[in-house]
Amino acid sequence: MEKKDTRNTIIRIGTDLISRQGFNATGIDAILKDAGVPKGSFYHYFKSKEEFGLAVIEHFSERFEYRLNTFLNDEDETPLNRIHYFLESSLARVTQNQCTKGCLIGNLGQEMADLNERFREQLETIFQMWRERFAACLREAQHRGELSGGIDPDVVAGFILSGWEGAILRSKVMKSPQPMRDFIEVLFATTLVQQ
Amino acid sequence: MEKKDTRNTIIRIGTDLISRQGFNATGIDAILKDAGVPKGSFYHYFKSKEEFGLAVIEHFSERFEYRLNTFLNDEDETPLNRIHYFLESSLARVTQNQCTKGCLIGNLGQEMADLNERFREQLETIFQMWRERFAACLREAQHRGELSGGIDPDVVAGFILSGWEGAILRSKVMKSPQPMRDFIEVLFATTLVQQ
Repeated sequence: MEKKDTRNTIIRIGTDLISRQGFNATGIDAILKDAGVPKGSFYHYFKSKEEFGLAVIEHFSERFEYRLNTFLNDEDETPLNRIHYFLESSLARVTQNQCTKGCLIGNLGQEMADLNERFREQLETIFQMWRERFAACLREAQHRGELSGGIDPDVVAGFILSGWEGAILRSKVMKSPQPMRDFIEVLFATTLVQQ
Repeated sequence: MEKKDTRNTIIRIGTDLISRQGFNATGIDAILKDAGVPKGSFYHYFKSKEEFGLAVIEHFSERFEYRLNTFLNDEDETPLNRIHYFLESSLARVTQNQCTKGCLIGNLGQEMADLNERFREQLETIFQMWRERFAACLREAQHRGELSGGIDPDVVAGFILSGWEGAILRSKVMKSPQPMRDFIEVLFATTLVQQ
């Protein structure tokens, strides 16, 4: 394999293991073993475990942005429906994974925000970016008259992000997608009511 | 110190360290050192690190129930105000802690739900208990005509718990209580509107 391919393989496998076990509990040796990369060659690809962790977060964020674009930029749907379908697609993914893993950004936020400032800053940036994506949809919904102008799109976008992260967490703990389903139901019945 | 006092000291210090670092990253030696208990005597008090972790969760849950009782059983307030004041008091505590730690149950849910079934079951039971406490308040609010009868108290109680856990997580990542403040604002402006 090319160096870049090997690096990508390590990141992909690392993402999966870190999603399941957390960052601190995931050993470099286990990742290399799963990746079929010789033990000891890790530092050929990453300066440190910290750099590796930051690369995993970056990789996840890029893939996630692709999903956000697919749903939230879909001009064929109304802005509120775009948010709705995005949440439904996340629900389907979590259900498919038997409610394991949760959200990598949420998981690492819990684990690392107080332990590593570089992780915390990168995770905060990603949460802010997600919030801004929801806020842009809500602004467009208001502009089109789909949603009341009386709400603050930035504040409500944060409300959606909080609720969604918490619902994913509760689904992981209950091993049931019900909290995510309930969140979508209440959100669109009370907060995001179509005009 | 009595054996029971020493055990309580270990649990208290363990709760603090686990809240900051997570369960797996917290070493028994560090807890004993902080507690001033001789190294090696841990197994005098707990059968295993797992048993210790379960005792920490139990201890946290008991203290938390005391706080829930203080607010949610307060007959001098309307049911919706009881929930409001409880959330405000949690916001004040998190602010006082400079948005470190987060919620121990949420943290351990992220970290342990996929790793240890006994932890997962205990955490699920506690989340369910919290949800039921909110649901009881919402039912009373409906009964008194403070809240519309059109919502399902159990579903909305889960919605509140999800949103609150996610808001605490985002506050921890942002090192700002703003997500918790925003959550309270939107919740009482859209989902829990007084009739």
